[in-house]
Amino acid sequence: MSEAKAKPTGPTPPYFETIAGELAVGGKTVSALVDDAGDTPLFVYSTDALGARLAELRAAMPARLAIHYAMKANPFAPLLAWMNRRVDGFDVASGGELQIALDAGVEAERISFAGPGKRDRELELAIAKGVTLNCESEGEAERAFRIAEQLGVKPKLAIRVNPSFDLKGSGMKMGGGAKPFGVDAERVPALVKQIIAAGAEWRGFHIYAGSQALDADAIIAMQAQTLALAGQLADEAGYAPPHVNLGGGFGIPYFPGDAPVNLLAVGGALGEAFSALPASLKDTHFCIELGRYLVGEAGVYLCRVIDKKFSHGETFLVTDGGLHHQLAASGNFGTVIRRNYPVAIATRFDSKADEVQTVVGCLCTPLDRLSDSAMLPHAEVGDLVAIFCAGAYGASASPVNFLGQGPALEMLV
Amino acid sequence: MSEAKAKPTGPTPPYFETIAGELAVGGKTVSALVDDAGDTPLFVYSTDALGARLAELRAAMPARLAIHYAMKANPFAPLLAWMNRRVDGFDVASGGELQIALDAGVEAERISFAGPGKRDRELELAIAKGVTLNCESEGEAERAFRIAEQLGVKPKLAIRVNPSFDLKGSGMKMGGGAKPFGVDAERVPALVKQIIAAGAEWRGFHIYAGSQALDADAIIAMQAQTLALAGQLADEAGYAPPHVNLGGGFGIPYFPGDAPVNLLAVGGALGEAFSALPASLKDTHFCIELGRYLVGEAGVYLCRVIDKKFSHGETFLVTDGGLHHQLAASGNFGTVIRRNYPVAIATRFDSKADEVQTVVGCLCTPLDRLSDSAMLPHAEVGDLVAIFCAGAYGASASPVNFLGQGPALEMLV
Repeated sequence: MSEAKAKPTGPTPPYFETIAGELAVGGKTVSALVDDAGDTPLFVYSTDALGARLAELRAAMPARLAIHYAMKANPFAPLLAWMNRRVDGFDVASGGELQIALDAGVEAERISFAGPGKRDRELELAIAKGVTLNCESEGEAERAFRIAEQLGVKPKLAIRVNPSFDLKGSGMKMGGGAKPFGVDAERVPALVKQIIAAGAEWRGFHIYAGSQALDADAIIAMQAQTLALAGQLADEAGYAPPHVNLGGGFGIPYFPGDAPVNLLAVGGALGEAFSALPASLKDTHFCIELGRYLVGEAGVYLCRVIDKKFSHGETFLVTDGGLHHQLAASGNFGTVIRRNYPVAIATRFDSKADEVQTVVGCLCTPLDRLSDSAMLPHAEVGDLVAIFCAGAYGASASPVNFLGQGPALEMLV
Repeated sequence: MSEAKAKPTGPTPPYFETIAGELAVGGKTVSALVDDAGDTPLFVYSTDALGARLAELRAAMPARLAIHYAMKANPFAPLLAWMNRRVDGFDVASGGELQIALDAGVEAERISFAGPGKRDRELELAIAKGVTLNCESEGEAERAFRIAEQLGVKPKLAIRVNPSFDLKGSGMKMGGGAKPFGVDAERVPALVKQIIAAGAEWRGFHIYAGSQALDADAIIAMQAQTLALAGQLADEAGYAPPHVNLGGGFGIPYFPGDAPVNLLAVGGALGEAFSALPASLKDTHFCIELGRYLVGEAGVYLCRVIDKKFSHGETFLVTDGGLHHQLAASGNFGTVIRRNYPVAIATRFDSKADEVQTVVGCLCTPLDRLSDSAMLPHAEVGDLVAIFCAGAYGASASPVNFLGQGPALEMLV
């Protein structure tokens, strides 16, 4: 039927099962889940997968390491409520996210707030509620002092440090060289003293060097550099940091050839590092903040085949989904070269893949390609397509109003 | 202050003025406009600019050519209402857009609907209202027949043709080779006969080969090929098309070195082509559908400097705007290499540009860069930054919920 050459797809996450030939989540087939939701497209987030991932992480990491959820990855309220009972803290990136977290029942004292462009009204909300602010600049710290004074509140201030190193192999570098994030390391000790002199509660350091790395050695090296930098800054400032946020960086496999992070290696190395801390970090509370790593592989995006088309020897499955819900999967967000996410014909999950088919969305733009020339089971109009790795940076990180299509449904199972 | 080397920016559109040293739109300074709106970020769309663009276009194009607005570029209701009194038709890309257009007062008979993944409920709405459907496949035409029969309505059906040529130099190719859009040209005559045999009202052809081209010769060549193809398909089908939509393709200058389309050349060539039409197209109504070209340069995005930061020799203006409103300007939508849109310090519009400054958004991601190392007037916290070419694919084509920031305000002036 199709003369096109197959292109590889990313690895399907290990958290999904097959029931009656269909992809299933939490013991229900995708058809049943879509019936429950009432429509497509639909994001399904698996609590089994979330729980398994968190358990793996807890088992591998030193007990001393707190695990925070960076809610920017997925702010779906039921998912936040689920996380709230299971993680040690939340990181928010805006006043809007802070309000969503508070509304979902997260206690303010478990929240920290990082972000380079905090407005006065966002600082006010955070300070009034008792949230920890990761100060991104001296100017922001001064605004926080002023607002706290007006409110008659002692603000909780950590310093976001712009480290001079980055995370090797990271998909998203947040450190190394000139950056809009944090305060250059050499100016941090002075700001520590200023915060303490101003009578604020100094909460320590936030050091985030990058995200989406799969190489354990790169993460181990980054964590070692982060600890060394925290110790050095503490010594220079003359104050031991109560807390150090070691950032994130743990990636998930999206693309052909990607392999999962070796968690045991990372946890083992961090445990060794914790047993050899400098004096200034002996009593420090450490955390990591993870978003994508906690939720990315737990989500699947389901859309329905509306049309099957043949054009110049190629076969297209036209779906009711698209880049308005899954911008990253279309290759239009943070990637230079488009590669295929893991994809399946969800209603024929155990069928033989023997037909090269391109999955497109319903948008009238050539950018709206969800999977290019993948070898898939023969699909028909009415079948459901699954795009995996949809738990992070999907629904909330896509142009939902584009071409008037509106939002997808979301469901925690 | 800054050691960074300046990178060039795109050309500022010709529609803006200076009042009291500030950028002004419609006789008001940006400060006054932001005061009127009540907050930043703010999209301002200039009716002066919209009117000037439309007048230039009407003057250059043959009178026989109808001008349609492709509302995907900007579906802001007041802008649609403005367009409704001035263009000859509207093109929508979803049932959602169709509803927005109807709500804005656009008459259904002036609307056509193209899009590869139309659902049954979208076909129903369009057919019931008397909208022209640009059929994207034989399967969609059959669904339209069935739905029209159920509704007891004679459907208005055009055929979207997948042409074998593309638009040279186009930023967005929609024709040439295997595509999810339209019906391959060789299968079109059979579908014409099928539509007529089914008792539908055949509306003709929709042939869209690409968008965002700046080279008049490329547009002229595409229009000639489009007319030739329409004539050939009409001859093969044995039916003269009542309407032919010649597509769009007219680009706007975004980046350094871009120059506007030579409208007079395009209009002159099209006039000549119209005077030498084959018999099958003698009585055909022709239109072009333009989105970006009509509205793109009429819009400016205004955001406020929240922080001014220095990191490793570079200067950052951190604003309350970002890629959640202006994804394309951040270089993350349909472009491989990031280049700078036209940018200005709006509150110092006539000041000397003598400082290299990078404008970033408030999002906690390195992707959120609105302008990289541009030579700009010295700016301070509180200044307004303008990103131009924000009238198309801005507010509605960006991930508005990303990081909980919420939508920008919009204003037609």
